[in-house]
Amino acid sequence: MNESQVGEADATAPADRQHSAAAPESRLDGQGMAADIAEQPDILAGLLDNARDDIAAVAARVAEYRPRFVVFTARGTSDHAALYAAYLTEIRLGLTASLASPSVVTVYDSRPDWSDSLVIAVSQSGGSPDLAQVIAGARASGALTLAVTNNPESRLAEEAELHLDIRAGHERAVAATKTYTAELLTLLLLIEGIRTGTGQIDSAESAALDKLPELARDVLDGSGAAELAGRYRFADRFVTTGRGYAYPTARETALKLMETSYLPSLAFSGADLLHGPLAMTDPRVPVLAVVGSGPGGHAMWNVLTQLGRQRADVVVVGAADLPGQTARLRTPAVDERLAAVLDILPLQQLALHLATERGENPDAPRGLKKVTETT
Amino acid sequence: MNESQVGEADATAPADRQHSAAAPESRLDGQGMAADIAEQPDILAGLLDNARDDIAAVAARVAEYRPRFVVFTARGTSDHAALYAAYLTEIRLGLTASLASPSVVTVYDSRPDWSDSLVIAVSQSGGSPDLAQVIAGARASGALTLAVTNNPESRLAEEAELHLDIRAGHERAVAATKTYTAELLTLLLLIEGIRTGTGQIDSAESAALDKLPELARDVLDGSGAAELAGRYRFADRFVTTGRGYAYPTARETALKLMETSYLPSLAFSGADLLHGPLAMTDPRVPVLAVVGSGPGGHAMWNVLTQLGRQRADVVVVGAADLPGQTARLRTPAVDERLAAVLDILPLQQLALHLATERGENPDAPRGLKKVTETT
Repeated sequence: MNESQVGEADATAPADRQHSAAAPESRLDGQGMAADIAEQPDILAGLLDNARDDIAAVAARVAEYRPRFVVFTARGTSDHAALYAAYLTEIRLGLTASLASPSVVTVYDSRPDWSDSLVIAVSQSGGSPDLAQVIAGARASGALTLAVTNNPESRLAEEAELHLDIRAGHERAVAATKTYTAELLTLLLLIEGIRTGTGQIDSAESAALDKLPELARDVLDGSGAAELAGRYRFADRFVTTGRGYAYPTARETALKLMETSYLPSLAFSGADLLHGPLAMTDPRVPVLAVVGSGPGGHAMWNVLTQLGRQRADVVVVGAADLPGQTARLRTPAVDERLAAVLDILPLQQLALHLATERGENPDAPRGLKKVTETT
Repeated sequence: MNESQVGEADATAPADRQHSAAAPESRLDGQGMAADIAEQPDILAGLLDNARDDIAAVAARVAEYRPRFVVFTARGTSDHAALYAAYLTEIRLGLTASLASPSVVTVYDSRPDWSDSLVIAVSQSGGSPDLAQVIAGARASGALTLAVTNNPESRLAEEAELHLDIRAGHERAVAATKTYTAELLTLLLLIEGIRTGTGQIDSAESAALDKLPELARDVLDGSGAAELAGRYRFADRFVTTGRGYAYPTARETALKLMETSYLPSLAFSGADLLHGPLAMTDPRVPVLAVVGSGPGGHAMWNVLTQLGRQRADVVVVGAADLPGQTARLRTPAVDERLAAVLDILPLQQLALHLATERGENPDAPRGLKKVTETT
């Protein structure tokens, strides 16, 4: 959006510009984010191969505790992983899920009654003081507490009774990608393990999960995101939408676009879009619509019809071409719970390519640090 | 945003245009919304004068039921009132609050265990089939159910065990204004009544509440919103922000701007803004920051400092001028719970005046109906 940056889109920009970049690891703009994105199939495979026992042990402990409800606390990208887990909690476990605002504890000094509840903090760094304060308060009020982080040495990991390591390795770019999908898969394995009551995942589910790394590789190789980025180089905003398990994908996509291309990007559940913001869509607003192959996807058809009436430019993320779409980012037809791990991949690629085409450096967005300390 | 509409800002537009408007009641663009906004002090006074006994009876019934947690379900503007009530629930009652996505029930056909819980649907029309379905499911699972609507004859009012009428009268404009503040005050009276255990509100609280209508009148008369609208006629997006009780105000403001001026408007809690979207703010992005006179407002100071570094254009909504602000929309220094009812008023006025300056008709936004039926 900054006119002085037009013309800097070339990844082979002069060396002096590279030296001035804030991310010393990324020699070319976006290389760090590209490497993070490309690692995801291996990270998913690593979790499935090596983390199952740890996750099963935590899931068994939770099942034994029998929480009445599950409270999540998180910020930014991790908040979208928590939102996904909240849908899993309500749909797969039949328990009420709450996304707690840390400010209730940290700003208003309230001490909610969290007895009988499982309180889960999700954080890549594990270093947010506000989340640690929420976990400490929850533990004091009798909750079972769990931290899901990428750093077993972090304050959050120490503060919570239980910890799960998402094993994503060092993330190069400020914009989170591989830690998001690692959080999603970790939370999916956890909740499916709680569901059976033993911590173990049933065998049909397990077989489907084992295919995820290969499917992720296929998506990254053939999504068509890089080609599509050029089409939106001159867009001045985005709308993203999805329902149910796909709504966190819409939210995370909007955040990626804002962080890396500074494009205002508005995420709505398909239903909420019809309650007001639909007025804002017109032929100049690209809409990224996540349309899966299950109930959430079917519930989007009416939304697509209404977007068609507004003559919106609609990119479908999913397994099938749909009437009125401008283009499709190709992802496979799998259960929507698993699709959440795959559908975000081409959208991460789109954010990366769009940012570099627009002359931004997605590895080191202006004004951001990797660990954000909020209170 | 539609270029063909440039030049239609004049409220004395040709009669043939008026005849084609979708809202037959509004003879001039925005008159309906202006009338709705202006009625708010009287509606607040009416609730305080006439609805207290009804609300106290419901609050006493809830206190007797002793819910373990409170689940809210709502869409659009009413979802922001529910978010406000979720903060009240956690801070004032010390109970976990959950904002349930109707899709869990309506799309994924799940039946969460809502026994021991109070489930509250908030809806202006009371006509949303999805909310009625959630309430029916909650009632079947043993929850105490309450509908808060502007229509005692609505399906939602019939479906729920308890009903509260927000008594806002017929709303002229599609964009909700007076029903929002009536929902806020109804929910505040309810939760403060639950807090005492008797349904009655304690006398200090009551005295503060009695001043609300007069304060609302003062805000509407002297906020400075109409003068400020001209400054943002050429803005192409907004960011809105606030923390705690002010965060729903930020969300509702963003929705109003999107519904009436079709301007992409992004609402963030002050803390979330620092986790990514801050990158998107630059001197061309106006930021509307709700900064109250309590803990939530104080927690915004760090956010304002960071916005200053991004050289953002910041309008403060609150009782005091703050360093780095471009302008201030004047609201009184009151407890943040009450401020939520007042702070939205100048922001409604800003949305109205901005829309008419930009040639839009806020009474009948394109593509929207007053009652949105989603499933």
